[in-house]
Amino acid sequence: MADWTVFFVSDHTGVTAEAMGRSLLSQFSGLHYKTLTVPFVSPGNLPDLLNRIASSSPALVFSTLTDPVLREKLKASGAPVFDPFSAFSVPLAQSLEQTPVSITGLTHGINQGYEDRMEAVNFALAFDDGLNPERLAEADLIISGVSRAGKTPTALYIALQYGKKVANYPLTPDDLEADSLPQQLLANLPRLRGLTLSPERLAQIREARLPSSRYASLENCRRELAAAERLFRKHGVPQIDSTHRSVEEIAARIVHELRNL
Amino acid sequence: MADWTVFFVSDHTGVTAEAMGRSLLSQFSGLHYKTLTVPFVSPGNLPDLLNRIASSSPALVFSTLTDPVLREKLKASGAPVFDPFSAFSVPLAQSLEQTPVSITGLTHGINQGYEDRMEAVNFALAFDDGLNPERLAEADLIISGVSRAGKTPTALYIALQYGKKVANYPLTPDDLEADSLPQQLLANLPRLRGLTLSPERLAQIREARLPSSRYASLENCRRELAAAERLFRKHGVPQIDSTHRSVEEIAARIVHELRNL
Repeated sequence: MADWTVFFVSDHTGVTAEAMGRSLLSQFSGLHYKTLTVPFVSPGNLPDLLNRIASSSPALVFSTLTDPVLREKLKASGAPVFDPFSAFSVPLAQSLEQTPVSITGLTHGINQGYEDRMEAVNFALAFDDGLNPERLAEADLIISGVSRAGKTPTALYIALQYGKKVANYPLTPDDLEADSLPQQLLANLPRLRGLTLSPERLAQIREARLPSSRYASLENCRRELAAAERLFRKHGVPQIDSTHRSVEEIAARIVHELRNL
Repeated sequence: MADWTVFFVSDHTGVTAEAMGRSLLSQFSGLHYKTLTVPFVSPGNLPDLLNRIASSSPALVFSTLTDPVLREKLKASGAPVFDPFSAFSVPLAQSLEQTPVSITGLTHGINQGYEDRMEAVNFALAFDDGLNPERLAEADLIISGVSRAGKTPTALYIALQYGKKVANYPLTPDDLEADSLPQQLLANLPRLRGLTLSPERLAQIREARLPSSRYASLENCRRELAAAERLFRKHGVPQIDSTHRSVEEIAARIVHELRNL
């Protein structure tokens, strides 16, 4: 089977072209390919890109170039180009009964809420791992769980992607032996979410941090998780299992459930 | 003009459908629309979604549903559907000379490197704001700049999105008065990048933190930034200006430049 070179081409970061392309390629099994993301394509650096595509055969191109002139030139590379702008701009204009404006240089709208997102990141750092517990009422969302359940990456991802102020609050061994969740969490129950995972996975993660410790032992992980899940259930806190989910998926599930409350 | 309802529909997080849709819609000026992201669509919750689309007129749908059966049902909603899977799967299969497998339930490939990305987030936190300077050699990348230049969000975004270990190291007023960059940075020059921004923007950001302070004054910001830029230039450190750029764009520019070194 041929070894393909797959180009993800964009006049912005290339993240959307790459996500779309990888998703489409995941439909084909046993495919051998290497990928090259080429962001910030402009009239100035397009000739270089066309040369690279021409010298990589066989090649595929996934593009989110917005400039119709650049899009046409890209097609002239000879490689198949998969491009939602070319495919959808005309039918979208027909649906909207409006002509598209030239949008070269416009961002893809992801600058939206930039200030909010930066503020949210600073908030997540200031409220990481139980910091500032007396100010939890300021949080849009509070994520709790045992040590190494994945609270920090989840909180930071939600802050960066969705601009929400997320605190994370660890359940310590002392908390887990109590009859109810800590007072600071009880005072903010509607915005509290529990993060859980399988004992095996948690033991593996903890083992990497503190090898052969009681902290990392499967038995201890099992006991801590059972106690945490019991406390969350007792207070009706929705829980999400992170064992087989990426941080993006966990974040999306938490945020979209929140919107529906 | 009609008020459109725009649905971003996905069997995963919806982030790609939303990015693609917003990008396409940004071609049309003066459009009034509200948006609804519907992630994790399954056979079970599809009827609900179809009802919501039907009761929202006029509606547009951007979809990255991977299951052909769900895609067909979505089209039956009557609203225009813009869907790269329907548009590109067949021509992609022709280019690859291969039949797509059914991929319901497959992720979009963004679980790739999950462990690396989580490790990178932990690294970025452990190396935030100059922590662990004696271990900077472990970093894939070091971001430096004056206080509030945006180092932390940039480092965290690169960690989450690209799985790279990023340290960030602040230039203090003492550092800025020296003749050269701090020794810890000099020892890691090839992986060092400078983050800068306009004095006006920096003053605005600092003013929100410490109002009416010398720290936030335009004069002080101007002096600090000039000193930092001079030091970066002296040692040939590539600088990126964050004034008019989103964290995604800064991250992509830094990462892709790095790949080309």
